[in-house]
Amino acid sequence: MKAIRFHGIDDLRVDHLPDPEPGPGEVLVAIEAAGMCATDTHILDGHYFAAAPVVLGHEFSGRITAVGDGVPASRIGELITCEPHEYCRSCLYCQIGQEHMCVDKKAYGVHLNGGMADLVVIPARLAYTIPDGISPIYGAMTEPIACSVHAFDRLNPDSGLPIAIHGCGPAGTILIGLAKLRGLSPIIGIDPRAERRELALRAGADVVLDPNDLSFTDRLMELTGGYGVTYQIDAAGSPRVIETAIRVAARKGTVLFFGVAAPEATATIHPQEVYAKELTLLGTAINPFTHRRAVALLDRLPLPQLHTATFGLDQAAEAFQAQRDGAADKIFIIPEGSSLHSTHNAAEATK
Amino acid sequence: MKAIRFHGIDDLRVDHLPDPEPGPGEVLVAIEAAGMCATDTHILDGHYFAAAPVVLGHEFSGRITAVGDGVPASRIGELITCEPHEYCRSCLYCQIGQEHMCVDKKAYGVHLNGGMADLVVIPARLAYTIPDGISPIYGAMTEPIACSVHAFDRLNPDSGLPIAIHGCGPAGTILIGLAKLRGLSPIIGIDPRAERRELALRAGADVVLDPNDLSFTDRLMELTGGYGVTYQIDAAGSPRVIETAIRVAARKGTVLFFGVAAPEATATIHPQEVYAKELTLLGTAINPFTHRRAVALLDRLPLPQLHTATFGLDQAAEAFQAQRDGAADKIFIIPEGSSLHSTHNAAEATK
Amino acid sequence: MKAIRFHGIDDLRVDHLPDPEPGPGEVLVAIEAAGMCATDTHILDGHYFAAAPVVLGHEFSGRITAVGDGVPASRIGELITCEPHEYCRSCLYCQIGQEHMCVDKKAYGVHLNGGMADLVVIPARLAYTIPDGISPIYGAMTEPIACSVHAFDRLNPDSGLPIAIHGCGPAGTILIGLAKLRGLSPIIGIDPRAERRELALRAGADVVLDPNDLSFTDRLMELTGGYGVTYQIDAAGSPRVIETAIRVAARKGTVLFFGVAAPEATATIHPQEVYAKELTLLGTAINPFTHRRAVALLDRLPLPQLHTATFGLDQAAEAFQAQRDGAADKIFIIPEGSSLHSTHNAAEATK
Amino acid sequence: MKAIRFHGIDDLRVDHLPDPEPGPGEVLVAIEAAGMCATDTHILDGHYFAAAPVVLGHEFSGRITAVGDGVPASRIGELITCEPHEYCRSCLYCQIGQEHMCVDKKAYGVHLNGGMADLVVIPARLAYTIPDGISPIYGAMTEPIACSVHAFDRLNPDSGLPIAIHGCGPAGTILIGLAKLRGLSPIIGIDPRAERRELALRAGADVVLDPNDLSFTDRLMELTGGYGVTYQIDAAGSPRVIETAIRVAARKGTVLFFGVAAPEATATIHPQEVYAKELTLLGTAINPFTHRRAVALLDRLPLPQLHTATFGLDQAAEAFQAQRDGAADKIFIIPEGSSLHSTHNAAEATK
Repeated sequence: MKAIRFHGIDDLRVDHLPDPEPGPGEVLVAIEAAGMCATDTHILDGHYFAAAPVVLGHEFSGRITAVGDGVPASRIGELITCEPHEYCRSCLYCQIGQEHMCVDKKAYGVHLNGGMADLVVIPARLAYTIPDGISPIYGAMTEPIACSVHAFDRLNPDSGLPIAIHGCGPAGTILIGLAKLRGLSPIIGIDPRAERRELALRAGADVVLDPNDLSFTDRLMELTGGYGVTYQIDAAGSPRVIETAIRVAARKGTVLFFGVAAPEATATIHPQEVYAKELTLLGTAINPFTHRRAVALLDRLPLPQLHTATFGLDQAAEAFQAQRDGAADKIFIIPEGSSLHSTHNAAEATK
Repeated sequence: MKAIRFHGIDDLRVDHLPDPEPGPGEVLVAIEAAGMCATDTHILDGHYFAAAPVVLGHEFSGRITAVGDGVPASRIGELITCEPHEYCRSCLYCQIGQEHMCVDKKAYGVHLNGGMADLVVIPARLAYTIPDGISPIYGAMTEPIACSVHAFDRLNPDSGLPIAIHGCGPAGTILIGLAKLRGLSPIIGIDPRAERRELALRAGADVVLDPNDLSFTDRLMELTGGYGVTYQIDAAGSPRVIETAIRVAARKGTVLFFGVAAPEATATIHPQEVYAKELTLLGTAINPFTHRRAVALLDRLPLPQLHTATFGLDQAAEAFQAQRDGAADKIFIIPEGSSLHSTHNAAEATK
Repeated sequence: MKAIRFHGIDDLRVDHLPDPEPGPGEVLVAIEAAGMCATDTHILDGHYFAAAPVVLGHEFSGRITAVGDGVPASRIGELITCEPHEYCRSCLYCQIGQEHMCVDKKAYGVHLNGGMADLVVIPARLAYTIPDGISPIYGAMTEPIACSVHAFDRLNPDSGLPIAIHGCGPAGTILIGLAKLRGLSPIIGIDPRAERRELALRAGADVVLDPNDLSFTDRLMELTGGYGVTYQIDAAGSPRVIETAIRVAARKGTVLFFGVAAPEATATIHPQEVYAKELTLLGTAINPFTHRRAVALLDRLPLPQLHTATFGLDQAAEAFQAQRDGAADKIFIIPEGSSLHSTHNAAEATK
Repeated sequence: MKAIRFHGIDDLRVDHLPDPEPGPGEVLVAIEAAGMCATDTHILDGHYFAAAPVVLGHEFSGRITAVGDGVPASRIGELITCEPHEYCRSCLYCQIGQEHMCVDKKAYGVHLNGGMADLVVIPARLAYTIPDGISPIYGAMTEPIACSVHAFDRLNPDSGLPIAIHGCGPAGTILIGLAKLRGLSPIIGIDPRAERRELALRAGADVVLDPNDLSFTDRLMELTGGYGVTYQIDAAGSPRVIETAIRVAARKGTVLFFGVAAPEATATIHPQEVYAKELTLLGTAINPFTHRRAVALLDRLPLPQLHTATFGLDQAAEAFQAQRDGAADKIFIIPEGSSLHSTHNAAEATK
């Protein structure tokens, strides 16, 4: 099979590997689509640890083509999405129900061979059935959606109150969709780029703002009756956003750290402000126990609003370059054997 | 009556005022004890806004001596503690159940005449009955205890996991007591002063640490099985504590901002650390709906471990100086008419 | 003014009363619309206590025409919806943040004169502004919506999991709308009446079932992958629904008691089933702190799907009969002075 | 090795079996103590399904004497308590973080060989280290404690409010201890047997009541200021307790179904009462993610107040008879090789 493998910093190769075979409890999956994520370029740049060599791709869908011992043959033919994490089940976090904080977590596409390939082998229990009528390309987005579902579990907002999403790219789009599914009102999309603000409106934001506008803060206050914003999500991974969000937060407001800032980047906060406004500042990481719920929401979210671009396995370099260039809202690798291969001409962005 | 009044920055006077009379729905209270709080010195220093002139004292107990229209005469003679806040009931926060965030909050002892006096008039509904057998001096501590009960409502910890309290003064003592009443284990008291660490041990801490010890971080890690601390409370109001607490937090750990930092003081945080460890940073302010529950806990907390000092109304200057000097863990004003007057010789600290 | 007054069991009269005047902190409201509720007929039948004589109507909107002392004159002209409850602020429940459980609650339209009249006087703080562009008729529905918002606060469901609403009348319609705003999937509407099932579909249910169908339970199991229903709301107030809901509940499922059963009606439950499936059975009553949030959701809910009928004050008898007959999904009293009087011809149901 | 095995209804045997050997990821444990639970007699009576033949005992402690591949040899010699559940990790419940609701759960001592034996083999990850200084006999109680910790996670009570525990046997004792560790006040123990009420007092109840006293309800009301009981736990598994608890519940009160009623036993409830008082009725089952936290609480609970009786493996029949007779608060099987064998003379109850 062909696979996009990380061999070390700046060393990405399209390799020919022997076809994998499913062991006991495992399934063999013919990949339909593998989404690209900012983490993939961080791995290549050496800013995020990955085992080497390893097949990249932790967001993927595919069809089960063979099963190992103990897996019912009836699963062959099933369209699935992978929940790409393995946990040690022995550390403090695994023992107290916080397995996503596991100190020995392993991820497919990072530590174990992932989905940017013709085939992948994963445990049957990590292969979640995609319902009929859902495109495999949206199925491949289940993982980032599951992260966003967890983000809203952390946020746990009360309906009928305002939310602002800072950063309206693909993650922001999903978060706006989930904000609508929590009855928040109004939903305010914030992004310095006009096309991102348009995407936010298409995704369901009630109003969009440019944070560089002089009237930005005044508009936020006006939109919230002068109280400030009750719920805010930093989907940009920016310390400046964190600082702004704390400043414009309503009393008893919550700021969720969703985007991934550089490890060395710092924000300056006033503890007295956190105390006096009784703020809640929350980190949120990956997708504990939310993959199945994310599958159930695939047809409730504004995914069709995203402009996608697709590439073949051989076009790994172009695909990663497109990701760096922001050439599309979301980039997918589509192997030749995928049912999507004919409809999605490689390297051509949907508009 | 005699009363300690704030007339402006650095202008504290012992005034003779006409005895107040209870209006409809109000009660007249003969003060038994009024606790001093850091806020009182902040007011005098001009660092915390108060109306002027106003009788200080927002932590107090007393006995009802007269009632206004609509209040049953049977309440006369009752020993009570005052919940010292009035809310507008019309703003966003009052309307969504977050009245302590009210934009037009008024507090007895800050905006309205408080308890450092022979007498005070308050609404009957803010006068909470103190059960038999509880000393009025502990009754006067209900307000800070109610703030700590709210702090634990915010923290909402799972039993059987570790907690560290940074700062082991009177607030830390109450918080350690509440940590025991939440089944946390171990309870770690942290303070640079030896006598405060001793107080923490008497209050129920399992172990105490000096943050200036070279082995401080190593000891915290050792005490938590190498995982870091799950729950932490900054009871010192120090940005350095916040920075330390984030660093030594366990994954999915919570840091509660309980102490009041100076408004201009800043802490430097790494958003990526909040994200990756999925931390929760929480402000907590005053005592929403917790005063009654605090009364029920008065005899469950290690209050007798606190060294107290008492002063008469005429000794206002000495009392405020003692507060600044840290001459005792907790300072009280005891009017001459109080039942405590004989047992507590003014200006004499209990040991 | 004219008003519909309850004078005792089966004694409903249209009375001419002096126009009320606003006292300090109060506003005078010219009624736009007053909704009828099952409680109103229960009052007339003697099954629900009300003071007598009292003007009925606890669901209403109107326009402020005069203000009492302390209320800004700028509020005159404002379209408002009334949060119709007064609490004692002194009992256990008021003191611990559960004011809707107050032992001395008073409601406008039950203990105090309500909205089935030309005019009503209420405290300014209970008059919530209705945003521009919202019809007063929907504004009059804020109270029942606020009760449903509270119901979902109690339910606190995780997104992406199934819900069943038993009973698809006007309350069920609002609940289905809120279920969509919580990302539940699928949403199953259950009602023995075909027109109610059609209403449920219009309101956004994914599928509707007739509980009298032989295949009813099988279909529920099929729709939930064989696991049973995770969330269920009894919007019918029927002990039989409670018994059914427990039986078809998924493990760790929740059943919310939203509809009001007769006080003497009983349900038979198996405690072992509640234990073994780890069920959660929840009562939910009225609208604590949710009226403002309900206002913000008025334009997010499928209210236009409800068939309404309107009556003048003089048609009180016909209106109550129409309520008993189920002549429309929702019945409103529209005084002659209302802006709705011309568009809504009295006694004519919208279709 | 010797082992107490269930061979079918009423067929309990002491068998000689080959010593088990640890496979990959497993440990061999020499049993120190195995607690008996009501479930064990239910199994023998055919009222609770168990595989046959199977070694009974799902509450046990022991010392690791050998390790399988992949388990560090350093664990040999460790004193451990077993978390006795295996989950499928593939069903709905496992996928949404509710693994204890797993449709294919397996328990050691029920479906897999358990701890009433000289030796047992379990996965290393289910062997939780018992800290130094804790008796193995208390270590063997970790499982029921973990169930009670989960019960309090479900109850999630606010401090400073009353709780009543109905049924003050060994489970009630642990629950009273946990109620103290949640700052509840007062703690009311309820049991018809005088010796159980005495146990409750020793365990920390503030007051105890006999439910058969004529003044029972009056006393409950008096103890709760006339409001009724906020939190209640049925630790007796009795439908009559459920009915009583609903009747004496405070508004917004919670009733937890902790004890196991017979499957066919029914309780009659009034849905209108659940609605109007806005009650919460909660099932609670086993110990999801709480075993580790329970270990941390072993030295915080009133376990020494329990009168225990110990038996050797050969005395299986006597031990089960003692369990049925209620001969002691808690019965343990102590193999000959246990370090407890000398101190605990078999068949002799501690007093």
